[in-house]
Amino acid sequence: MNGAESLVRTLAAAEVGACFTNPGTSEMHIVAALDRATQMRCVLGLFEGVVTGAADGYARMVEKPACTLLHLGPGLANGGANLHNARRAHVPMVNIVGQHATAHLQYDAPLTSDIEGIARPFSNWVRTSRASSELGRDAAEAIVAARTAPGQIATLIVPADAAWNDGGAIAAKPMIPKAPLPSNESINRAASMLRAGLPTALLLAGGALHSEGLAAAGRIAAATDARLLAPYPLTRVQRGAGLPSVQRIPYIHEQAVDLLKGFRQLILVGAAVPVDYFAHPDRSSELTPPDCEIHALAKPGEDYLGALDALSAALSIGNNAPILAEKAERPPAPAGEITLPGLAAAIAAVLPDGAIVVDEAMTSGRGIMAATKGAPPHDWLGNTGGSIGIALPLAVGAAVACRTRRVLCLTADGSGMYTAQALWTMAREGLNVTNVVFANRTYAVLQREFLGLGIGAPGPRAAELLDIGRPTLDWVQLGKGMGVPGSRVTSLEAFAKALTQGFEGDGPTLIEVPL
Amino acid sequence: MNGAESLVRTLAAAEVGACFTNPGTSEMHIVAALDRATQMRCVLGLFEGVVTGAADGYARMVEKPACTLLHLGPGLANGGANLHNARRAHVPMVNIVGQHATAHLQYDAPLTSDIEGIARPFSNWVRTSRASSELGRDAAEAIVAARTAPGQIATLIVPADAAWNDGGAIAAKPMIPKAPLPSNESINRAASMLRAGLPTALLLAGGALHSEGLAAAGRIAAATDARLLAPYPLTRVQRGAGLPSVQRIPYIHEQAVDLLKGFRQLILVGAAVPVDYFAHPDRSSELTPPDCEIHALAKPGEDYLGALDALSAALSIGNNAPILAEKAERPPAPAGEITLPGLAAAIAAVLPDGAIVVDEAMTSGRGIMAATKGAPPHDWLGNTGGSIGIALPLAVGAAVACRTRRVLCLTADGSGMYTAQALWTMAREGLNVTNVVFANRTYAVLQREFLGLGIGAPGPRAAELLDIGRPTLDWVQLGKGMGVPGSRVTSLEAFAKALTQGFEGDGPTLIEVPL
Repeated sequence: MNGAESLVRTLAAAEVGACFTNPGTSEMHIVAALDRATQMRCVLGLFEGVVTGAADGYARMVEKPACTLLHLGPGLANGGANLHNARRAHVPMVNIVGQHATAHLQYDAPLTSDIEGIARPFSNWVRTSRASSELGRDAAEAIVAARTAPGQIATLIVPADAAWNDGGAIAAKPMIPKAPLPSNESINRAASMLRAGLPTALLLAGGALHSEGLAAAGRIAAATDARLLAPYPLTRVQRGAGLPSVQRIPYIHEQAVDLLKGFRQLILVGAAVPVDYFAHPDRSSELTPPDCEIHALAKPGEDYLGALDALSAALSIGNNAPILAEKAERPPAPAGEITLPGLAAAIAAVLPDGAIVVDEAMTSGRGIMAATKGAPPHDWLGNTGGSIGIALPLAVGAAVACRTRRVLCLTADGSGMYTAQALWTMAREGLNVTNVVFANRTYAVLQREFLGLGIGAPGPRAAELLDIGRPTLDWVQLGKGMGVPGSRVTSLEAFAKALTQGFEGDGPTLIEVPL
Repeated sequence: MNGAESLVRTLAAAEVGACFTNPGTSEMHIVAALDRATQMRCVLGLFEGVVTGAADGYARMVEKPACTLLHLGPGLANGGANLHNARRAHVPMVNIVGQHATAHLQYDAPLTSDIEGIARPFSNWVRTSRASSELGRDAAEAIVAARTAPGQIATLIVPADAAWNDGGAIAAKPMIPKAPLPSNESINRAASMLRAGLPTALLLAGGALHSEGLAAAGRIAAATDARLLAPYPLTRVQRGAGLPSVQRIPYIHEQAVDLLKGFRQLILVGAAVPVDYFAHPDRSSELTPPDCEIHALAKPGEDYLGALDALSAALSIGNNAPILAEKAERPPAPAGEITLPGLAAAIAAVLPDGAIVVDEAMTSGRGIMAATKGAPPHDWLGNTGGSIGIALPLAVGAAVACRTRRVLCLTADGSGMYTAQALWTMAREGLNVTNVVFANRTYAVLQREFLGLGIGAPGPRAAELLDIGRPTLDWVQLGKGMGVPGSRVTSLEAFAKALTQGFEGDGPTLIEVPL
């Protein structure tokens, strides 16, 4: 057995169920080995940012790593921005990156680069395998690294000779370390904060926003009058009618400050202290009021569910205690001219049960989460690292992971163009993704930030650098060019109808919404 | 004056004539400063791989650096693959990368990353500016680094507070160090090799393939019966009727070996020893015969023109000695069904005087260089680092640099999809680029490499990972979606006609050639 075979079989045996890839010459033996690993689904992307973003979306839904297969340093670099987002999302991921054969490196051939150096800023674990005999073991250790709580990016670099030489050995299924519980002191402190009767919020992240963790948090909220919050950089939350009511902290500084000013205590469950995305010359980066006491009940990598259960026990809240839940509430499908509230209402009116919403409509989509809180239960995935161009790839991964569910991908003309190649993969794989492109013809976030700097309006040359409306991007043509049928809508009725058709049909569709 | 203003004015004063950018929030003060730097042309890209590839194309033609302006670590990473190509091309480039304000870094906000770590594998020089007062000086030093022979990638990281604080000072126009001459010993050794009467080739790179260097090499070739070669990873060569005859070493191993086996001596002028792109289990990576004597007349960073002049002098070749030149030779425009030789002949028949050909048609385009050697004088730019997705961005940069010349961009469906967003920038800037997309619906290079590994034909799952024909990419729609008109051609007459229309019209066009 060659090294490539041992690598792929070790991954498959450890339940790595999908490989997202854009391979090159130095990975051909691994491609050959994938041919025989029929339990692993292989998905091709035409650009590596699609590959890494899709592996992220897959992991968010499955809670186990997918692997990527990338071509040398430049292929890895192309995937870097969405690896940044995935690292910030605390998802598990195993990147397999090809390297020149060991004897070839001395020649400094054109594609030679410092792959470990490229990998390190985006990875929690990096290793270059030394021989075919070690590749299986290295893969197993990469999986352990990836699955170590709260979820990590593991990058294994595979020299071509390690892949093609004989002597490969499949590693045993690795033992994944359990996340440790926080200290009793930490739990008791959170309990005493919740008993103090002050306005308090629990800021949840990771598994604390899924099923059992979320239910435990919802019981604590109901019993203590605490509010549940989620960070703006949101990996995944389960939400909708009957599920615990969680408010996401807004992106806009003033809105975030306004939400948080009401709290005297903030208990973090896997989440970071909420701060601004960007500094501003005239204000603090902190969003919480100065007199707010902040305590990390569970730090990233600790056992969030265990911590919430222990906190419930400390507060004597039973497993069947009531949950602070959202009421079922759907607006009627709206009609008339396109408005942002109208678009949000249309989505809320028709979102199917069990949908997965991928959200990167940064400016145009801000009202949609509030509008859909009473819709049937669904998942919501956000941009976790602030690097735009994640939504379409994330939708690919979520749809590959959950074949029977409907994915709604909310993107925009600015963010969508970074990784538009994802549409082709959606068409190829027949993924049930309804893509909405909010086309405001501008980098609206930047226009807002520019105005907020207090240096006046942008002059004509600066304004050009924030304007993406000349020429107009025609998303219907772009979609068709990649095999995704679509339409442009100019009324709310047409938008709701196109959404419904997308949710009911087979394969991907695209809806361009000029704004 | 704030730091941003001092940065931009220092760049403009040092003849950095273009800024290719995809900016973000942390770069808004620099965008504001660019508004006033009217001598610098600002060009927006929708994806950073377009930005860095365009800066490369600009520098190849102008022989001075453009700057890029990129958003934090992920923006830089998105530009990394084409930075790899640019570093390998030995072109000068100054990257300006935004960083969070210094006081904001402590919060580990979502977009925080190790920007220096991301920059280092792709840069010859990296610095984070420490204060507004140092930004002008840092920019000047970045320019010196970029322009130090043979041309380098300099990356200057600018914290937002260094940009927005007062205290900026424009730096004096920097002194660029002259490239040193090789030693007399090196020149004399090359002269004695050329006098030995053995089959000899000069392998040229960098400026040795432009104007005066090329003329000097052409005189040496004519006087000594030496052959002139260029590396497959080709930054830029001036070629065509009346210009020195230079043969590019082929990409295909067997063809390269076949070309080089005739030489007993190889003299390098700025070029690296020719080696395979990739290792193969059963063969050496070296392309020259074992008994070939190899001597570097000039190493990268030395003065190639000076070295060639000194070599001419040592060989007593006068400045007016004859040049080994290409004869003018145009095939008639071909007709009939599409064939690869027919496509090459059509290009040779209609290529305009002074064209700039950007070449990344890796499989389909191999015959075009031979067919066009007798066409009117033109420049030829290749992929230098092997990371595909360079052609469309490179064409943007070359067209921005040379407004009065025609650019022919030869790309393919596989390579074109990595950075197709470049089409939008072409349309926006009204660039005279005729884009030819050879659509073979496959990663043909990989299919060939897979078959060459001796592990049999790819099985069905592996074959899927090399096939990009399902769904079919419709490049005419993709182009139109980004504002570039185009057509699909199915005969050689139609191809030649579409080429001619592209060369004669205003703005970009696209021709899809299904194969």
